[in-house]
Amino acid sequence: MSVKTPRLIITSGEPAGIGPDLCISLINHSFSAELVVAIDPSLFAERAAQLNYAIKKPVAHVAINEPPTPGALKILPLKTPYPVIPGQPTPDNASYILEQLDTAISGCQQGIFDGMVTAPINKSILNEAGIAFSGHTEYLAQQTQSQQVVMMLATQDMKVALVTTHHPLRQVASLITPSLLEQVIRTLNKGLINYFGQLKPTILVCGLNPHAGENGYLGREELDIINPTLNKLKNEGLSLIGPLPADTLFTPKHLQTADVVLAMYHDQGLPVLKFHGFGKAANITLGLPIIRTSVDHGTALDLAASGKANAGSLLTAIEYAIYMAQNKP
Amino acid sequence: MSVKTPRLIITSGEPAGIGPDLCISLINHSFSAELVVAIDPSLFAERAAQLNYAIKKPVAHVAINEPPTPGALKILPLKTPYPVIPGQPTPDNASYILEQLDTAISGCQQGIFDGMVTAPINKSILNEAGIAFSGHTEYLAQQTQSQQVVMMLATQDMKVALVTTHHPLRQVASLITPSLLEQVIRTLNKGLINYFGQLKPTILVCGLNPHAGENGYLGREELDIINPTLNKLKNEGLSLIGPLPADTLFTPKHLQTADVVLAMYHDQGLPVLKFHGFGKAANITLGLPIIRTSVDHGTALDLAASGKANAGSLLTAIEYAIYMAQNKP
Repeated sequence: MSVKTPRLIITSGEPAGIGPDLCISLINHSFSAELVVAIDPSLFAERAAQLNYAIKKPVAHVAINEPPTPGALKILPLKTPYPVIPGQPTPDNASYILEQLDTAISGCQQGIFDGMVTAPINKSILNEAGIAFSGHTEYLAQQTQSQQVVMMLATQDMKVALVTTHHPLRQVASLITPSLLEQVIRTLNKGLINYFGQLKPTILVCGLNPHAGENGYLGREELDIINPTLNKLKNEGLSLIGPLPADTLFTPKHLQTADVVLAMYHDQGLPVLKFHGFGKAANITLGLPIIRTSVDHGTALDLAASGKANAGSLLTAIEYAIYMAQNKP
Repeated sequence: MSVKTPRLIITSGEPAGIGPDLCISLINHSFSAELVVAIDPSLFAERAAQLNYAIKKPVAHVAINEPPTPGALKILPLKTPYPVIPGQPTPDNASYILEQLDTAISGCQQGIFDGMVTAPINKSILNEAGIAFSGHTEYLAQQTQSQQVVMMLATQDMKVALVTTHHPLRQVASLITPSLLEQVIRTLNKGLINYFGQLKPTILVCGLNPHAGENGYLGREELDIINPTLNKLKNEGLSLIGPLPADTLFTPKHLQTADVVLAMYHDQGLPVLKFHGFGKAANITLGLPIIRTSVDHGTALDLAASGKANAGSLLTAIEYAIYMAQNKP
């Protein structure tokens, strides 16, 4: 059920990256939520000192038996097994990273937290530590037994979801099947209804080929796969527009009519979204049984402890997690 | 050699589309060039009347033996063989469309015109008339015996060129060969030097795969094809940056460093360009022996003679043609 003041857990991610910096910078912001940062308290204090950070408000450890305090920033204390050197990640701290995620997932599943927001990690460090890990989103889907998740990036006023995500371009056309497209659209539609307060979301769907295939002249996937799938779902009452040519879809005439754009692949949709919302875009995972948003950037190892990290994406991710918690049924 | 006041020919395109409307609207603009519209004078007068257009300046037929008159709008009179009904194109007027192009091409080759600007046509109408025609650009390349042309779209402050253009997405990865990429980059580099007054243009190159392949993890074309080709050309002194991930390349940090973005395919580059410059983007063909710019939209048959056609793209195309004529060596 929806909550007025959500309690969110923020996983601070790779300790040698900018995740801790971004979490520390939250001290200067106040949200209509209680934020609980999963981090080693020593790392928090040390990095704050390295950044010469003026701590204006006290940071308390979490008291999960009490109701959330609006505007509070608290810490859920974990322990890094190995010393942290900014910019130098080590597989020796991989268990600490995974502990953050597991704590957040189980806390959300138990209702202690209303949602989780993830700071960045390095997949390769987990793999070097012998942990099979292909990404935050995949790990969350696996741990929550979710069948189909959808990646949606959002700025304050634009949302772009993807049918396929991280695959070589050569494989993309073959990955677009009626079954995948149908599942993604259903998950996206349900996610917008469940977490964004939309009774009947309108989804603007890109074609796969340039000019949306130009009646088969530039590719047949629109005729053979996309049109039949959209028609089937439209007949069930879903509000779908398309497939439209991606190069002219991102214009006010079309964007005004829809709640979200569904791109067929990564580089068809995300360049526009990130151009539009540079530094302030959040990554939202739909299809999980819990609320999860994330930054849309990496660990930026070269910027750790430099004071130059930009918290815009984390702030947007937190705002969206609050919005989703406040709007869920 | 560069010209202070260029004389440009504007092909008015499909007579049943918005091309004539856009050309008529030029009456209200003044450029530092002489504009010569290839059109049937009866159609010009009739469409102007349909649009209730207030003709503020006289329109004279072209006098090509005299020097260009800055700010003038003139007509190069041609004849439609068949009556024109707005919104209803007919193959019976296909020869008129082709005559515009042939007149413009030969006029540019003879030096009568300093460049050509094309309003939109319908490929299918020419094909129905038995003329094998796959597009303006292809026709111009063929008629001028050009080996490699490059499509570049431009707004006032962003330029995006394409390695591949109108192909099914399924074929794109296989089309990216070292030979094609090298030819496109050389043509683009030479075009920016010859027509945009740039001594050493900097080209920002997108990867083919998401995240530019992530070191082979998401596709090998960057490692096997793009990197070696860029390195070869960099060693010759070309200023190339990349391959970079397309989703983060279109951000100020990168865009500020470059004169043009080179996208690997249509929907990787054009959605951002058209989102950014909606209604005001021009299409520029590099690699021809003549200057050619174009609108970036279609014939919009439903808007012909309605007064609702937007001339933004044609105005940008004319401005770029003037700039190119004034900057050529």
